[in-house]
Amino acid sequence: MGDVKIDFEKSGGLVPVITQDAESGEVLMLAYMNQQAYDETVKSGRAVYWSRTRGLWRKGEESGNHQDVRGIYVDCDADTILLKVHQHGGAACHTGRRHCFYRERESDSSWRTLIEPIFDPEKVYGKKK
Amino acid sequence: MGDVKIDFEKSGGLVPVITQDAESGEVLMLAYMNQQAYDETVKSGRAVYWSRTRGLWRKGEESGNHQDVRGIYVDCDADTILLKVHQHGGAACHTGRRHCFYRERESDSSWRTLIEPIFDPEKVYGKKK
Repeated sequence: MGDVKIDFEKSGGLVPVITQDAESGEVLMLAYMNQQAYDETVKSGRAVYWSRTRGLWRKGEESGNHQDVRGIYVDCDADTILLKVHQHGGAACHTGRRHCFYRERESDSSWRTLIEPIFDPEKVYGKKK
Repeated sequence: MGDVKIDFEKSGGLVPVITQDAESGEVLMLAYMNQQAYDETVKSGRAVYWSRTRGLWRKGEESGNHQDVRGIYVDCDADTILLKVHQHGGAACHTGRRHCFYRERESDSSWRTLIEPIFDPEKVYGKKK
């Protein structure tokens, strides 16, 4: 047991957050939190991030694909968070895919798309994107 | 198949890299790459990062705990890399632990240490730290 102070100041108020599916172990996405987003994540039990373009981002508020927090981990330097979650709706990525890391580099330097969308982003988010 | 240009410019020349154990699915660490580190990673098949304090960082060069690349993935915005690796020496973290995310937040706001070091960092890295 011990005290850890997450170092939000190191990178100008934001820390990177790796979000991992608690059941499958898949890495779903990388996002950022500031102190406010972190505090709200802890309090609500749902992932809340800070978007550099949109501000406080309650993940899934619009799409319904929210993330229930299963565990919060901090790294050796206390400047990165690992969040284990249960992903609602089956998709973490705004492209409608299960996770964001759906392109793999091939030996010929091209990128292969591994998975397809499971929902249509235009239907979920509208035509904004 | 397709072309993807990793966006190194978005955050001043560096992209975050999530390193995951290819066999167990454990998230081992978060680090950064610039174009040079990325190119050398691709060419050598071993993880090479860019440390903001130490420059080009050939992971494991000193400790022997290098990482063989098993897969390179890029996210939807092309500004984050996921690297799946085989971790040599059993430990990715400079504290001597298997991974860097060894502290979990408890419901009383304290942090519980989940795993202990498997090597003594002072013996491997000397007294520098």
